Amino acid sequence: MADRRFFERSGPFKLGELASLADAEPAPGCDTDLIVHDTGSLESATGNEISFLENRKYLAAFENSQAGACVISTKDAERAPAGMNLLFSSNPYRSFALITRHFYPEKPVLGGRHASASIADTATVSATAEISAGVVIDDDAVIGDEVHLGANVYIGPGVHIGDGTRVGACASLEYCEVGRNCNFHPGVRIGTRGFGVAMDPRGHVELPQIGRVIIGNDVEIGANTTVDRGMGPDTVIGDGTKIDNLVQIGHNVEIGKNCIFAAQSGIAGSTKLGDFVICAAKVGVIGHLTVGSGARIAGMSGVVKDVAPGETVAGIPAGPHREWLRKQAYLENVAKRRGK
Amino acid sequence: MADRRFFERSGPFKLGELASLADAEPAPGCDTDLIVHDTGSLESATGNEISFLENRKYLAAFENSQAGACVISTKDAERAPAGMNLLFSSNPYRSFALITRHFYPEKPVLGGRHASASIADTATVSATAEISAGVVIDDDAVIGDEVHLGANVYIGPGVHIGDGTRVGACASLEYCEVGRNCNFHPGVRIGTRGFGVAMDPRGHVELPQIGRVIIGNDVEIGANTTVDRGMGPDTVIGDGTKIDNLVQIGHNVEIGKNCIFAAQSGIAGSTKLGDFVICAAKVGVIGHLTVGSGARIAGMSGVVKDVAPGETVAGIPAGPHREWLRKQAYLENVAKRRGK
Amino acid sequence: MADRRFFERSGPFKLGELASLADAEPAPGCDTDLIVHDTGSLESATGNEISFLENRKYLAAFENSQAGACVISTKDAERAPAGMNLLFSSNPYRSFALITRHFYPEKPVLGGRHASASIADTATVSATAEISAGVVIDDDAVIGDEVHLGANVYIGPGVHIGDGTRVGACASLEYCEVGRNCNFHPGVRIGTRGFGVAMDPRGHVELPQIGRVIIGNDVEIGANTTVDRGMGPDTVIGDGTKIDNLVQIGHNVEIGKNCIFAAQSGIAGSTKLGDFVICAAKVGVIGHLTVGSGARIAGMSGVVKDVAPGETVAGIPAGPHREWLRKQAYLENVAKRRGK
Repeated sequence: MADRRFFERSGPFKLGELASLADAEPAPGCDTDLIVHDTGSLESATGNEISFLENRKYLAAFENSQAGACVISTKDAERAPAGMNLLFSSNPYRSFALITRHFYPEKPVLGGRHASASIADTATVSATAEISAGVVIDDDAVIGDEVHLGANVYIGPGVHIGDGTRVGACASLEYCEVGRNCNFHPGVRIGTRGFGVAMDPRGHVELPQIGRVIIGNDVEIGANTTVDRGMGPDTVIGDGTKIDNLVQIGHNVEIGKNCIFAAQSGIAGSTKLGDFVICAAKVGVIGHLTVGSGARIAGMSGVVKDVAPGETVAGIPAGPHREWLRKQAYLENVAKRRGK
Repeated sequence: MADRRFFERSGPFKLGELASLADAEPAPGCDTDLIVHDTGSLESATGNEISFLENRKYLAAFENSQAGACVISTKDAERAPAGMNLLFSSNPYRSFALITRHFYPEKPVLGGRHASASIADTATVSATAEISAGVVIDDDAVIGDEVHLGANVYIGPGVHIGDGTRVGACASLEYCEVGRNCNFHPGVRIGTRGFGVAMDPRGHVELPQIGRVIIGNDVEIGANTTVDRGMGPDTVIGDGTKIDNLVQIGHNVEIGKNCIFAAQSGIAGSTKLGDFVICAAKVGVIGHLTVGSGARIAGMSGVVKDVAPGETVAGIPAGPHREWLRKQAYLENVAKRRGK
Repeated sequence: MADRRFFERSGPFKLGELASLADAEPAPGCDTDLIVHDTGSLESATGNEISFLENRKYLAAFENSQAGACVISTKDAERAPAGMNLLFSSNPYRSFALITRHFYPEKPVLGGRHASASIADTATVSATAEISAGVVIDDDAVIGDEVHLGANVYIGPGVHIGDGTRVGACASLEYCEVGRNCNFHPGVRIGTRGFGVAMDPRGHVELPQIGRVIIGNDVEIGANTTVDRGMGPDTVIGDGTKIDNLVQIGHNVEIGKNCIFAAQSGIAGSTKLGDFVICAAKVGVIGHLTVGSGARIAGMSGVVKDVAPGETVAGIPAGPHREWLRKQAYLENVAKRRGK
């Protein structure tokens, strides 16, 4: 159960209603009239709560769970404890996420402006936007309906923020256009100067960065992540892309739709990524590359050449994942042999 | 000597007094009545100042030092210059730290609230807490005695901060309970949304993150480091743990007591670490692992399986340190041979 | 063409004038009276705009470019499309940067203090400095002429900032002296506590960090980058050094002039670097090393021993680049052979 100081719960809901909104199918014998009061983990959920099983590392916890209901894959049904109400889903984690969003919807945005906010006369701020204490909005910025700007946020001149987007505390947005229903976490830096340094023995010269950052809808950007504006072309982030904390996105990078970037990864300038690309944690991708749609890059890899659509790569320098496995197996053998 | 614009010095103190508070033993012949005015490096310290030797890379500097007193390990005594007053310690660096803290105590917290701070009516703020300019404290937050909140800090609804804790400028704390005498540096992000994304071709779904961050006493968190709140369970950081700059701690991570995380390391979700674990710089640890107490992870390693208590691991993927050394030695040989 | 909401353009200028300020030489037949209205990429530039060619990956784009003028290396002249006006430069990227700076000079600093700024009575702030909304300037700080402090910036006690330096939104500067014409991006943390932890089973002890950060002229520091103050000695960054986003500079580090640090790199405590050192992205360098002038460190390398002047190193642990290439070639062979 979530701490009531921090999270407000809706409900209760009937299990059948939850199945329906979660794209899940009640298993034979499932009591769809069960009144469900909350979500919980396999270990903590009680008879009127719902849980889920996705990572089979937790099968034992599933077998011993007291949860009244559980979203699972059909293949795990035979491991269910007696009396548990099962919902079948092709993606139990997604179904559970949808159910949890129903119990714990995001806090509504309450329109209003804190007295300590500094808003330029030429800025256009929707009456339904919530402007927290210490926010600074600069000239000609446009803030849409039901936008939430957290405490001490800075919005630079001319920035446009679409309806329903939320910006966490102490973030700064400059030289950008942002779509609808995005979620930017505290300390995010968007539109910062790209690292365009012309190196020279006479002293380096910084190239003015006169592009923008264009961000689609439903984009998430993690805490203290930095997204540089373009050098002339724009930096682009497509709809539905999710970026974790402390990630660096360089100037002119173009990211497609529904990509995933785990924490501390970094994409260097002018690289272009397709849709549904997955970069695991601490990945580095050098500049001026093309990474095809559906490509997957293993954690801590260093990508130095193009990646084909759907390919999985690993290593520094990154190559096909199966080759990386062979290299590692070889070195394991060497180490074992020499250790004797 | 520290710059007086920035640091205020106490003292002078007798050497005997310093030995005592530093758990150090005056060597035979040491003048415990020596009046010591300051601390200094081996190169800079003069006759009425005290230094220390820990890293034997600096033995030559020690032999030539003009310091009036020095904290050392007994084994280095024979290398001491004539006339230097020696204090023996089993941990000279720690002893020197304790002495330096005596000369340069932290600035006292002066209770008071800057007029520009925005404090919710429902927040409880100790009269002895120091609330700097531009601070924003949200509903129902509780700020303990002698807490220091730096300029433009944001404290979210319901957050509790224990006595004597200091929070650096421009930091933000949400969905968390913080113990006593912690030290959070500027730009820290605590309680940010964990990266819980249910990936799906129909579009990713973000799982609400309804857990908290629970932080013990005497915890240090470095500049621009991010600590995500739990997904349902809490993220936990034990007493005395020290975290450097730009580190990422994922949701549901449990960290024991007195652990060390060097800069730019990252721990993925749901991983559990024991006590006295040391993660060197730029380490990555994937999610859902167990790292035993006293384990040590070499810099830039990528940990993908459990680490036993007391074990030292290295490499990507990380394995026993001695095996990593063998792999490197092998590759060195290959490179040398082929270079001929 | 840059978005007029965000960037103001100067000009037009004669091509001859641009050649002169860019240290470039008009090629035979070049029309130096051509009126140039803007800069652009090879793909986008039109007949009255100027572009450049540096990365030969873009030679095809050059051959098809409609740009009226282009800065190139002499060796690429024969590939130029008919009628294009060519400027020869030994460093086309640098020349183009200088031209772009002429078209898009930095916004002038307009002296003045926003009413919401909190400035200590004992601070000295030039009348020509621009102090944005929400800025907090602490006791005895000194802010030079035409300094720009962005929204919600914090300047700690006693900090000195030289003429013409710009500090981005939400940044914090403490315990430091900063030279002229520096450019610090949003969220920068300067002068934070170095990670000086004396580890001990009795509980770790934090060593007071009583040094400063001393920064030269024309230094750039990227968004959310952290620079720790010295432990006793100072942390030093030399003139003209350019640091990208999310970089960590440890305590006591000494960096020479005109060095380059790409994103997410990190330098551990007490390491000393010469001039014109290049650290590519995600590099880690351990503490107490010496890196000679002109050394180059490949991306994602981990440097664990001194690097000689002019040397290029790669790998974890980093060694000579040519040896790293041999190791990789060997492992590639192994993987290919075993894959059959």
